[in-house]
Amino acid sequence: MSLRQQWAAGDETLGLWIQLPSPITAEIAARQPVSYVCVDTQHGVNDAMTCVATFSAIELAGNVPIARVPWNEPGVIGKTLDAGAHGVIVPMVNTRSQAEAVVDAARYAPAGSRSWGPMMAGLRRPDYQQWAHDNVTVIPMIETVEALDNLDEILECPGVDAVYVGPADLSVSLGLPPGNNDGTPAFDDALGRITDACARHEVVAGIHATGSLAARRREQGFRMITIGSDALAVRSGFEAELAAAAGGHAGGTDAMY
Amino acid sequence: MSLRQQWAAGDETLGLWIQLPSPITAEIAARQPVSYVCVDTQHGVNDAMTCVATFSAIELAGNVPIARVPWNEPGVIGKTLDAGAHGVIVPMVNTRSQAEAVVDAARYAPAGSRSWGPMMAGLRRPDYQQWAHDNVTVIPMIETVEALDNLDEILECPGVDAVYVGPADLSVSLGLPPGNNDGTPAFDDALGRITDACARHEVVAGIHATGSLAARRREQGFRMITIGSDALAVRSGFEAELAAAAGGHAGGTDAMY
Amino acid sequence: MSLRQQWAAGDETLGLWIQLPSPITAEIAARQPVSYVCVDTQHGVNDAMTCVATFSAIELAGNVPIARVPWNEPGVIGKTLDAGAHGVIVPMVNTRSQAEAVVDAARYAPAGSRSWGPMMAGLRRPDYQQWAHDNVTVIPMIETVEALDNLDEILECPGVDAVYVGPADLSVSLGLPPGNNDGTPAFDDALGRITDACARHEVVAGIHATGSLAARRREQGFRMITIGSDALAVRSGFEAELAAAAGGHAGGTDAMY
Amino acid sequence: MSLRQQWAAGDETLGLWIQLPSPITAEIAARQPVSYVCVDTQHGVNDAMTCVATFSAIELAGNVPIARVPWNEPGVIGKTLDAGAHGVIVPMVNTRSQAEAVVDAARYAPAGSRSWGPMMAGLRRPDYQQWAHDNVTVIPMIETVEALDNLDEILECPGVDAVYVGPADLSVSLGLPPGNNDGTPAFDDALGRITDACARHEVVAGIHATGSLAARRREQGFRMITIGSDALAVRSGFEAELAAAAGGHAGGTDAMY
Amino acid sequence: MSLRQQWAAGDETLGLWIQLPSPITAEIAARQPVSYVCVDTQHGVNDAMTCVATFSAIELAGNVPIARVPWNEPGVIGKTLDAGAHGVIVPMVNTRSQAEAVVDAARYAPAGSRSWGPMMAGLRRPDYQQWAHDNVTVIPMIETVEALDNLDEILECPGVDAVYVGPADLSVSLGLPPGNNDGTPAFDDALGRITDACARHEVVAGIHATGSLAARRREQGFRMITIGSDALAVRSGFEAELAAAAGGHAGGTDAMY
Amino acid sequence: MSLRQQWAAGDETLGLWIQLPSPITAEIAARQPVSYVCVDTQHGVNDAMTCVATFSAIELAGNVPIARVPWNEPGVIGKTLDAGAHGVIVPMVNTRSQAEAVVDAARYAPAGSRSWGPMMAGLRRPDYQQWAHDNVTVIPMIETVEALDNLDEILECPGVDAVYVGPADLSVSLGLPPGNNDGTPAFDDALGRITDACARHEVVAGIHATGSLAARRREQGFRMITIGSDALAVRSGFEAELAAAAGGHAGGTDAMY
Repeated sequence: MSLRQQWAAGDETLGLWIQLPSPITAEIAARQPVSYVCVDTQHGVNDAMTCVATFSAIELAGNVPIARVPWNEPGVIGKTLDAGAHGVIVPMVNTRSQAEAVVDAARYAPAGSRSWGPMMAGLRRPDYQQWAHDNVTVIPMIETVEALDNLDEILECPGVDAVYVGPADLSVSLGLPPGNNDGTPAFDDALGRITDACARHEVVAGIHATGSLAARRREQGFRMITIGSDALAVRSGFEAELAAAAGGHAGGTDAMY
Repeated sequence: MSLRQQWAAGDETLGLWIQLPSPITAEIAARQPVSYVCVDTQHGVNDAMTCVATFSAIELAGNVPIARVPWNEPGVIGKTLDAGAHGVIVPMVNTRSQAEAVVDAARYAPAGSRSWGPMMAGLRRPDYQQWAHDNVTVIPMIETVEALDNLDEILECPGVDAVYVGPADLSVSLGLPPGNNDGTPAFDDALGRITDACARHEVVAGIHATGSLAARRREQGFRMITIGSDALAVRSGFEAELAAAAGGHAGGTDAMY
Repeated sequence: MSLRQQWAAGDETLGLWIQLPSPITAEIAARQPVSYVCVDTQHGVNDAMTCVATFSAIELAGNVPIARVPWNEPGVIGKTLDAGAHGVIVPMVNTRSQAEAVVDAARYAPAGSRSWGPMMAGLRRPDYQQWAHDNVTVIPMIETVEALDNLDEILECPGVDAVYVGPADLSVSLGLPPGNNDGTPAFDDALGRITDACARHEVVAGIHATGSLAARRREQGFRMITIGSDALAVRSGFEAELAAAAGGHAGGTDAMY
Repeated sequence: MSLRQQWAAGDETLGLWIQLPSPITAEIAARQPVSYVCVDTQHGVNDAMTCVATFSAIELAGNVPIARVPWNEPGVIGKTLDAGAHGVIVPMVNTRSQAEAVVDAARYAPAGSRSWGPMMAGLRRPDYQQWAHDNVTVIPMIETVEALDNLDEILECPGVDAVYVGPADLSVSLGLPPGNNDGTPAFDDALGRITDACARHEVVAGIHATGSLAARRREQGFRMITIGSDALAVRSGFEAELAAAAGGHAGGTDAMY
Repeated sequence: MSLRQQWAAGDETLGLWIQLPSPITAEIAARQPVSYVCVDTQHGVNDAMTCVATFSAIELAGNVPIARVPWNEPGVIGKTLDAGAHGVIVPMVNTRSQAEAVVDAARYAPAGSRSWGPMMAGLRRPDYQQWAHDNVTVIPMIETVEALDNLDEILECPGVDAVYVGPADLSVSLGLPPGNNDGTPAFDDALGRITDACARHEVVAGIHATGSLAARRREQGFRMITIGSDALAVRSGFEAELAAAAGGHAGGTDAMY
Repeated sequence: MSLRQQWAAGDETLGLWIQLPSPITAEIAARQPVSYVCVDTQHGVNDAMTCVATFSAIELAGNVPIARVPWNEPGVIGKTLDAGAHGVIVPMVNTRSQAEAVVDAARYAPAGSRSWGPMMAGLRRPDYQQWAHDNVTVIPMIETVEALDNLDEILECPGVDAVYVGPADLSVSLGLPPGNNDGTPAFDDALGRITDACARHEVVAGIHATGSLAARRREQGFRMITIGSDALAVRSGFEAELAAAAGGHAGGTDAMY
């Protein structure tokens, strides 16, 4: 079930993030009980070409592949959707016209002007034109003070399904260190303004987070919450083994080979 | 410092295992406080070609790259060492003559007949011939009943620095399920026979394990203990985030992007 | 002989299309008796990097490599030509100024402002500057209602050698289903307007088609006709074998290995 | 359903062959109504590493991935199965002891001595040890005069599920040109000897063929018949388009992009 | 030491250029006594994805990795820095606003608006935000007549550390053949105007050159001089061997394997 | 013209060596006036898979692609020839039976038992069976004391076209440092014994050398002389630029971009 359908059904969605150019970590992620797996082609070591294999791996596990594109450009948005993304997260959308450009690049006419040629996407879904109309999910990122100032204009743009908060960039834009700055009023207020506006416009509020933050984000009104990435998971997984080796306590994995 | 040097200094060595064809997970592993990182080209999704990049990543982090080769063949042992491995783990060595073949393939004349041409290895170590003589570490695997029966002959083969136990294959060979069968006498006795024989022949005993098993293995006399792999770490890392998200407790990572 | 030279000699040109990132399917295509092989980096699973190998394969077979770029951007147009394309098809050119941007990106001064550095292209043609001046072929796509409205302005833009019709996008822009809509007046009229305008401006009319449509397109005045792609050919080739297996009749291939 | 299960159910099985290192042609093949898709790592441009992606693509389409290995070597047989093959075709098996080596490399103890570590295979099938026992299919090739002379000994080797005839090598071994030499007594007799022996030993007879030959092979008693490869299909698909373009008749594809 | 630090210390810097998508030629370059190694993703066969491995190779050798991006686009500038570049050379910067865009894309707030997510860069430098502030080097290219006309405006743009002259494009823009046109007044004057303006604005003057030209460029006031590329080096290295073989004289290499 | 044909015509042949997995350095090599370009899959960073692209690049330049395989194994010899090698150099051939195994793996019946399936090789040469019979060149390496002792037996093995001396391994086997040990009697005598035996058996004597050594090797009777490799050429090319930059003298390249 696509994110649009899950949200229409009222579901909260947790997801995982892929920074490595690895269909294997993507498949491992997609076999977890999450609602989406997002391949990051902005800051991750991926591009529209590596997405072809990672999306296939996510579909093989029966999960929902989406991607963050590197920038708000129609060429790369189209190429990523053709590669099989069920939705796109687009960074640094700060104005209404930038949001309109996202929708225009991601939707076929008459809703937009995406070019036809769903190479990998169409291979798997013969009725792709209708499928895309029903399922492709459009998710601009809100991550600057400028975007906060234009929230209503961005959210009322037709075709925007959700917005996604990048807490690191939002923090930097607010003059804070990159990361989650919960407890700092400027940061907390910004998240509150976003979830309030999303509620007003019936747009899903999404955010990049961690497992530990999930409960708090849920309470704040976020319904699309990314809780981990492959690059961070491999590091924390190694650290857990080392801690177990140091302490002699049970923990880490018990599987082998 | 190579494994041979660490062992000569009396050190116990913990290590990590790379199954993914990813220089990035290899670099993440190599930045952990471990003594070696082994790229698995037998069961992992790696071969002598992918080793070139993963070994570079491990060296970049200042750690010791070794590899498990897919089989006891001189061509692939040489190619793996040329790619920059500081040592090789060779599976399914069951007899003295098989152990001699390993040494022959891994050492230059007069100790063996490895062919000269240390492409990547020599790029970084201008006096590679001497360096290889001093540091290349030769590690046959003991993982069958046949090998247990030939333990002394294998261990007294000149040029064998350590042996490495594959508990899954050893278990299967003993008629047990693949995995660690601690508490099962046949399994415990087999490990005991190996560590006893290693002590007798002054060969290092190594074994594939987990963080939780490290203390026990140490007590049993193993000095080379692999405690985790990237493919397992990424899964356990994801599971930790999901557990944190479910329970609302602190845990998992706090980093982001 | 480049497309410009073939067209100057009055030739009609048939071509094939490469969607797979495969120098092998490109070489197989280029060994067919066609006038060009186009690597699709917009909807195909190719980018300017994979073009390097596919262009080499096409040149090895003595054929003419061109490419469709993903978008009208000078960086990617230059990179594709440096990789060895003899010409570029540029999607979604709807206005005179967009057509001028294509020419500017594809031609060296004084005709344009392409940056010098023909990495792969120059390797094979020592007098590349002159060769490029004589042979690089510039082909904007006409595939929207907006472009139809601006046809004369686009076609009179100096440096445009041909235009290329994308029937799927043109159809969508006309409110029709993606594909060839022959027999539908809006579609037929649009093709007629394009070939008429091309004749008026002495610009070659090109179009994406199939083998079966080639005769009709030829009659309509198209002189550059793409009749198949590797991804579709592999599927139709498999279907022919299955039909032969089902029917017991001769057909499909008789070669083997 | 694995090949072993299909054969146990009495099914005849048609299959396709992958020579290109392309998960995309593999997925296109696997979406055809065939019983298996075999990745050729002997003569095809594939190896155990490229199999990882092609097997995933075949599984994504719900089909059965098998592979031909380059040679009868335990390292590469194990690596190919770990990568996710449901069975292996092994070339040039001419004697009983060679057949035993194939079974030994492909089956876990006690039936053989395959090493444990089903990296990709186990990711998808948690109960892989049992699954492998029930489903991994072992298929030696019969393709020389020597093998014909040892047919009964090879076929009575426990663990051999089927044999696969390579008509090109068999022909060359018989002093005929490489290919199908139907109508030549030496060739026809050889196939007859093989199917007779298979019937005697209740081993499935398989053969490399074409769509046109399928009916004849079926009549001769073959139950595993490969009818096409991606490299040949792409060529025949292109040829069909060119024929349609030349003749103006309907044919080839009608799809586009 | 980063280029900014070397320049602050008053050093002249020589560098090498990587056109091949090869971490190995990059490592060979980086082991030479030069101050930087630049990966060319504009005209070279590299992109932001291949940079990940080449930058790692350069860091492994203890050298400074920078890159030329294909075009002045924030997405690709960010992605290249995240991949681990210590600085970026940006082609075709002709105006003050284009220079400001470069700085904006390359620096974090408040100096610019680079998005946070230093995937590879942060892996190696835990304090990356501060490190980037101190070390990331911003280098627009001056290579057109238009840029010459706007020199002062470009050079006084805050955050520009150096400018880099592309003699080939500059020559073409001046109506000269691509290359170094020393002795032609228009070319010599242009270089003089650039170094004078750089001196006035305390910006480092950089230029693409050869070993033979280095002395002259140094005298002209350039402090950042690229003296060779891997693609040219491999050719000239081969030519030296052939000359030695023809002449029988000593020369070329004496190493082997 | 293949090496066999060149030698039949009495030609001396100079060649270049490819260690990098780079079709580009291979094409640069192949555009030099040499008689063959050999891809090293033993010590170089290449295998039978990377050969596909490098052989294509060498053919594109109109030169003769051969390869050194990693070991004397029929699977890899066949795979390398199928990939398009016109000949194979096989390391460590020390006995008559090892030489026979090389010929058996490289020639079709009745001269040997190479398996039919010339994937890439046949794509370019429809009459490949005859072409292979006439042109595939078989070249065992003589590089140990054991091989010296068995010289006549190896050289009288039917189907051996040339032998190739690895001076580094030969030296190590003789107890000398790896490299060329001209002037050391043991080394000089060994070369003399090889060229004498080759003359006696009308087999071409080949050797790995450098440009500077070519004249001497020619005088010694070698007719197949490799004079440089891409990895060494890129290093010596860089060193020449640095020397030119240091000395201010002309030298190195004058080309650019």
